[in-house]
Amino acid sequence: VTDLSALGEFGLIERFTRLLSAHPDVVVGVGDDCAVLRCGGSHWLVSCDASLEGVHFRRESAAPEAIGWKAMASALSDIAAMGGKARFALVTLACPPDTDVAWLDALFQGLSAAAASCGAVIVGGDTTRSASGVVLDVTVIGEPLGGRWLTRAGARAGDAVAVTGYPGRSAAGLLALEYSHDAPVLIEAHLHPVPRFAEGQWLAEQTGAHALIDMSDGLLQDAGHVAEAAGLGLDIDPGRLPMARELEKARAWLPGDPAALILGGGEDYELIVALERDAAPALCAEFERRFGLPLTIVGTFEEAGGVRVGGRGYDAAGFDHFKG
Amino acid sequence: VTDLSALGEFGLIERFTRLLSAHPDVVVGVGDDCAVLRCGGSHWLVSCDASLEGVHFRRESAAPEAIGWKAMASALSDIAAMGGKARFALVTLACPPDTDVAWLDALFQGLSAAAASCGAVIVGGDTTRSASGVVLDVTVIGEPLGGRWLTRAGARAGDAVAVTGYPGRSAAGLLALEYSHDAPVLIEAHLHPVPRFAEGQWLAEQTGAHALIDMSDGLLQDAGHVAEAAGLGLDIDPGRLPMARELEKARAWLPGDPAALILGGGEDYELIVALERDAAPALCAEFERRFGLPLTIVGTFEEAGGVRVGGRGYDAAGFDHFKG
Repeated sequence: VTDLSALGEFGLIERFTRLLSAHPDVVVGVGDDCAVLRCGGSHWLVSCDASLEGVHFRRESAAPEAIGWKAMASALSDIAAMGGKARFALVTLACPPDTDVAWLDALFQGLSAAAASCGAVIVGGDTTRSASGVVLDVTVIGEPLGGRWLTRAGARAGDAVAVTGYPGRSAAGLLALEYSHDAPVLIEAHLHPVPRFAEGQWLAEQTGAHALIDMSDGLLQDAGHVAEAAGLGLDIDPGRLPMARELEKARAWLPGDPAALILGGGEDYELIVALERDAAPALCAEFERRFGLPLTIVGTFEEAGGVRVGGRGYDAAGFDHFKG
Repeated sequence: VTDLSALGEFGLIERFTRLLSAHPDVVVGVGDDCAVLRCGGSHWLVSCDASLEGVHFRRESAAPEAIGWKAMASALSDIAAMGGKARFALVTLACPPDTDVAWLDALFQGLSAAAASCGAVIVGGDTTRSASGVVLDVTVIGEPLGGRWLTRAGARAGDAVAVTGYPGRSAAGLLALEYSHDAPVLIEAHLHPVPRFAEGQWLAEQTGAHALIDMSDGLLQDAGHVAEAAGLGLDIDPGRLPMARELEKARAWLPGDPAALILGGGEDYELIVALERDAAPALCAEFERRFGLPLTIVGTFEEAGGVRVGGRGYDAAGFDHFKG
């Protein structure tokens, strides 16, 4: 292995992680949605998330307000994915000297609005020149409620794979934008994702919930991370995928099966939770009653067998930043 | 003002800062070296610092280990600049898919070594593809010792401007590298700056020390930030600048007066402190006794008059990322 496209994003992270040493105040380190750090008698959740022009967004196809919103929301979602509460954010911004100031104002409005909508306060950051393209890196700090959080590493064989809301809408919204289809709900899901804070906090309180992650890379890939963290496999039942009404309607113009977008489309920031099998139906019902949003059992974590759909291996591909 | 090159880095920060709201747990917000955040009964210091290829470093002229070291050290220096103790770091790395893995290993060794040398633990981050060029953003978390920290905003008229060590060596080291001069001490100062943690912590304990900042942009510009934060001016005595022996020797090949590098050269990460006038000489003597390093009085904070050298206005220029 000599270059990064062969090693891949997760290979790189694993390579770096091997070099890190443990520390008693690092309760959860590299490899989960957030690090969990001991701070005096309490704990903090910390994460960062980068958004680069030409990789994560294009100035031609997204308004600056939406670019800012999404950069902040995707970072904050990592706190929701541990069941935490958002507290603070820092924003690093690199951009070329000829960047339009009105564009930057709108970008910052989007960053601020997303932070405020999650109860987070922007407290600092860094600004610098870039040779080309805008780079955003958002660091977020949160706290667990009641001293509890859920990592991605707690699933047990037999647990149900459950997912909040209607994933796949963001990926469909991107296609709607690219091909100029009139699909405002899907486009809004793509441009202004809303981290599932209340939902994550409630799930972290349930003893029947064993592991939690947010969907940034797609259902199969992110559920696969949960399985891998516990040394398990998983099987998704394609007949149980929650299908948004707008996604069903989009069959008319989508180039393929909408189910592929639910399985492989990222950036919805819905949550995937591993639920104790016997408790799962009641937890899903209570979740829907509380949040007016479905929590749908879509499959099962199993002893082994990798990531499967309907019992068969599935080339999820998902998204690897370096394998492309 | 329509583009960033007219507004400048500090104009941009001011523009963003106006949009931010206060929060009781944000004890110090945007505008200082670190934000100070209340966390339960204690406080945390948080900051981030970006390093971009082609702006902050070049792969052709610096080894990856040195690039990683400097990115980490410059971020951690912001904690030293409040008198804090380094605890944790997160690293965001964006790079092209064809980046050499051995190069990345060495980069990470540099990041790790600098963190370890300051007592910080790397606990997370983000990795992603970039369209071109390597981007590093390092977030650092520290804590104040004994609940005390020094901001840049506490200088009083009449206070002495004092500086640790021998600034100007890093800028001279960069010139030595670019023009292939044999100046190992200067080059080492440029490639492997060492944040002044013990020194900053001791200064933060002294009641005669009123304000503290680290020198990332140069003596005049950074001392100017301290003056500005207190609504003051300052005058530097050019006859009192601490001149490193190696910088004196470099007169033979330097294109100009070494004093210009002390006044305007950045990236030394020495500390500038505002000292109560009457207490200053004893504090400097005690500092030198403890640390084997000079703390030199180089000027005075005054009621007004902007930034001056020998009583006259000086076009510090310093470095503005956008004005270039």
